[in-house]
Amino acid sequence: MVRDVGSRHCQAPAPDDRPYIIASCGDGREDPPIVPGGGTIPVFAVCVHPHYVPLACRELQRAEVKVCTVIGFPLGLHAVGVKRVEASAAVEDGADELDYVINMAHVKNGAWTNVKEEMDAMRCLKEEAARPLVVKAILETGYLTDDELVRLCRMAVACGLDFVKTSTGFGPGGATAEQVALMRQTVGEQCGVKASGGIRTLADAVRMVQAGANRIGTSSGMQILQQIAGANCSGNRIK
Amino acid sequence: MVRDVGSRHCQAPAPDDRPYIIASCGDGREDPPIVPGGGTIPVFAVCVHPHYVPLACRELQRAEVKVCTVIGFPLGLHAVGVKRVEASAAVEDGADELDYVINMAHVKNGAWTNVKEEMDAMRCLKEEAARPLVVKAILETGYLTDDELVRLCRMAVACGLDFVKTSTGFGPGGATAEQVALMRQTVGEQCGVKASGGIRTLADAVRMVQAGANRIGTSSGMQILQQIAGANCSGNRIK
Repeated sequence: MVRDVGSRHCQAPAPDDRPYIIASCGDGREDPPIVPGGGTIPVFAVCVHPHYVPLACRELQRAEVKVCTVIGFPLGLHAVGVKRVEASAAVEDGADELDYVINMAHVKNGAWTNVKEEMDAMRCLKEEAARPLVVKAILETGYLTDDELVRLCRMAVACGLDFVKTSTGFGPGGATAEQVALMRQTVGEQCGVKASGGIRTLADAVRMVQAGANRIGTSSGMQILQQIAGANCSGNRIK
Repeated sequence: MVRDVGSRHCQAPAPDDRPYIIASCGDGREDPPIVPGGGTIPVFAVCVHPHYVPLACRELQRAEVKVCTVIGFPLGLHAVGVKRVEASAAVEDGADELDYVINMAHVKNGAWTNVKEEMDAMRCLKEEAARPLVVKAILETGYLTDDELVRLCRMAVACGLDFVKTSTGFGPGGATAEQVALMRQTVGEQCGVKASGGIRTLADAVRMVQAGANRIGTSSGMQILQQIAGANCSGNRIK
């Protein structure tokens, strides 16, 4: 569990994000907390807005930490063609992972063919990319009924996406353990489940992992990793 | 003043915006408040997410109300090429007005050449369009110092944009009378000033117009127009 906790998410555009991005990359690159025995707990990825992908790639070039970015963020109400252009540019800039926001208007208007068209378009990027690319669909679960959530999860598996992800942080509510459990139950082992939105403490993260998440998106990554290191030091090893 | 008050802004993606858009277009099309003497107070434009431009154009086709949409909304941290693709698609779909969010990262990193490049790219859309197109730069004034705001306003005039606009509603704070006054003072009559963000009542709108705004962006357009009609009926004519 520990290795996948630390995906870093820069949600809102701070007035000057540049130092924050560099600091986040620094955390990812060289300052992970040290655990008993001398090992470290790395973050899995640093997640930045598309604008900062080149910067994050430069900062992380000697690290194994991935660069993740967001597409159609945060509202998702862009045409599929616009999302594709944004995604292609991000891949060209060096992004390893793309978290795209589904078009909620299609879902709520029952335009499931359009929802699938978008998933297919995003999956195609994986086939076109010269290197491994991970694609996640952000479902903005706070808007969804259970039926819609299950349908979207099944569709993501059928379309060959890598992850379903809960929230942008801009929608109503963040990840809930109940919805994460339903997502995991639906996708089984065919797809990853990323919980994000409102995860600020180790307890939040543990609850999501216990519900079935195998990736956490959080702006509090370093604090959570330090809590893990502290728990390990004090003998309260995370299960 | 009255004719320009009513620009309608659909800020956040409701779970199912479709009925809301249709209702807003209905307000714009056929149900404006009637004022003494039998005249009506029209809204100037209905503002929708790019996804809903075709729907708004269909609903408004017999009306003089414009269709406005938002580009790079709400964070603005997209590459200029992505914004251009989104804007071109919106124009093709029938949008009359484009409110694009400037890239705050460029501003805060002092990359003024990039800010200008974006303004030039958006202005070029006006030249390429087959019909009149109005382009507004959303400056997200809550992030800006007075010096930055003045510099951006001067640049917008030099680049030939039609309007500078205060806020998306997603940034810190909305329109303030002080910043609207500074914007008007800087652009003079060479450019419009649209105040948006947190404008919910007639009193808010009047304050912005008195400060120098000639367009108001609000999700409370119909309520404000009804307040104007009421003020007119009771003899308290809006100056």
